[in-house]
Amino acid sequence: MRIAQVAPLYESVPPRLYGGTERVVHYLTEALIDLGHEVTLFASGDSRTRARLVPVIDRALRLHPGRPDPVIWHTLMLDRVRELCDSFDVIHFHIDWLHLPVAMRCRTPSLTTLHGRLDLPDLQPLFRHFNRHPLVSISDAQRAPLPQPNWLATVHHGLPLDLYDFHPEPQDYFAFVGRISPEKRCDRAIDIALACNMPIRIAAKVDAADKQYWEEVIEPMLDHPLVTFVGEIGDGDKNDFIGNARALLAPVDWPEPFGLVITEALACGTPVIAYGHGSVPELLEDGVTGFIVHDQHQAVGAAMRIGEIDRRACRESFERRFAAPVMAASYAALYRRMVESRVEA
Amino acid sequence: MRIAQVAPLYESVPPRLYGGTERVVHYLTEALIDLGHEVTLFASGDSRTRARLVPVIDRALRLHPGRPDPVIWHTLMLDRVRELCDSFDVIHFHIDWLHLPVAMRCRTPSLTTLHGRLDLPDLQPLFRHFNRHPLVSISDAQRAPLPQPNWLATVHHGLPLDLYDFHPEPQDYFAFVGRISPEKRCDRAIDIALACNMPIRIAAKVDAADKQYWEEVIEPMLDHPLVTFVGEIGDGDKNDFIGNARALLAPVDWPEPFGLVITEALACGTPVIAYGHGSVPELLEDGVTGFIVHDQHQAVGAAMRIGEIDRRACRESFERRFAAPVMAASYAALYRRMVESRVEA
Repeated sequence: MRIAQVAPLYESVPPRLYGGTERVVHYLTEALIDLGHEVTLFASGDSRTRARLVPVIDRALRLHPGRPDPVIWHTLMLDRVRELCDSFDVIHFHIDWLHLPVAMRCRTPSLTTLHGRLDLPDLQPLFRHFNRHPLVSISDAQRAPLPQPNWLATVHHGLPLDLYDFHPEPQDYFAFVGRISPEKRCDRAIDIALACNMPIRIAAKVDAADKQYWEEVIEPMLDHPLVTFVGEIGDGDKNDFIGNARALLAPVDWPEPFGLVITEALACGTPVIAYGHGSVPELLEDGVTGFIVHDQHQAVGAAMRIGEIDRRACRESFERRFAAPVMAASYAALYRRMVESRVEA
Repeated sequence: MRIAQVAPLYESVPPRLYGGTERVVHYLTEALIDLGHEVTLFASGDSRTRARLVPVIDRALRLHPGRPDPVIWHTLMLDRVRELCDSFDVIHFHIDWLHLPVAMRCRTPSLTTLHGRLDLPDLQPLFRHFNRHPLVSISDAQRAPLPQPNWLATVHHGLPLDLYDFHPEPQDYFAFVGRISPEKRCDRAIDIALACNMPIRIAAKVDAADKQYWEEVIEPMLDHPLVTFVGEIGDGDKNDFIGNARALLAPVDWPEPFGLVITEALACGTPVIAYGHGSVPELLEDGVTGFIVHDQHQAVGAAMRIGEIDRRACRESFERRFAAPVMAASYAALYRRMVESRVEA
């Protein structure tokens, strides 16, 4: 099929540093090409891809020295998509909702993956109005605040099979990876590790908005011989940092629409102990790839029993459910359904 | 003609308090109805109009307690316009550029008045791309940074004829009206008045962003018997505040695309002394409705000679050039041109 992928312009595809959506669009694009599809990627000009790139702006917006206006550049991108739309069988949008008035009146079928939280109240009237545009969620849990729109499917994010190596023999520590922010509950992770007398290593960045929380809550907890704070780490270091851990601790306190780090751990063969909010019950198989807990008592108990989890089962769960080829095949099936229903109509 | 006016949603039409664009859309809408046109107004639901109102959101965005997302609500509005577009002869947008991908492919002809500054670098690629959409400037000077797009005309803003009364007999003071910000140069206005030994009354608001400038530069200048600061005033008080002044001082330091306060003064019969930046030479007739100056020496000289200006000539200039019926007639002529060229095409 001739497929257009429309990425946000905030980061390049793939992103230089952080950037969840653009990273997933990258994995999807390359995996669709592996499946033999002809993919056109609308993205910033500093993107690197095997797809045909339509470079909308020379460099991604977030680190662009000219501080470009995001609405202007996404509006321009939208019109480039519209100009070329007849040359695609299907158009896949990843840019929230700015495109809806245009997409709804385009002859080429299109769908939108919503990558973020959906509890913004304004989304209710928005999708009551645009109630016929096909939407894809990244977890079933993500849909909870927005039951009414035209959900086509849930497609979980996928990572390339060779991004992380299987680590069969862990070392004696638990890992925490993420941002230092109240809802990520790094404090709980430290408490769990200390209750088991197990070292914990924390790889996390501290955003300016969370500086006070960091200084008042987390920093005082680091002054313990079992606690090591390594700061922010890149994709390269993540492989061994997560892979060598006995478990990844994800005691999050909010309904995260998709916990990418959980799938990263599974790719390494590292089991995960996570609180059962949001997408967690969809990502983890309780007792098979880790433990789903609901309080600190359960969490410590789970941490004590982590040796019961077969690390190979974690890797197998990743390969079966969260690998990029699986994600690409799921999307390709949706695209085909849309193209065929168009031909029938 | 059946005319759609598409207003920003930040303020109601007319605005409760501040809000330049929505105020002008209000004057235009009502004046077009006076000319016998059938007008539909897309705006926030708390707008008050004789037009058919399409209420996009219950209340205007800026003071809305739910802190709504502007892109979502303007996107929704855009789709309402598109759904109804076949019922209009012409669509007039006042919402910057979000509508361009939709408007360019609508069968109904449309035009856009750009109300703001055009020196944002991103506007160059935007209007190189959308180079066929008809644009209206609010002054010729406004166009300077953006020479290439499809400028259809300049239409100056107009005020209702009865909004301000002609004040034939002024009192002994100069007036300054505006924001306290470095580019408005309230300091220059004070210096001009004091050099003439004339009282000056200042009606101005201080935004949070300008607090330091206010405290360091302007506040220390107010401690003089000839200087009176009255704070922010509403439309009702403006009539006598400006109308009773011997002159309005507008020693601005930046190329304002349209100086609405200059036309307010002329409506009162009050002459204006202004620096010749931006739209000023288009709004003032030097020596007839005030004086255009280029330094403080000229400004003080002009202030000394302000008695030479015939206040009736100021009011006449307003009625001839800056009255709402004049603005409406200019736009109606543009609409007709667009409708006729569509019929021919």
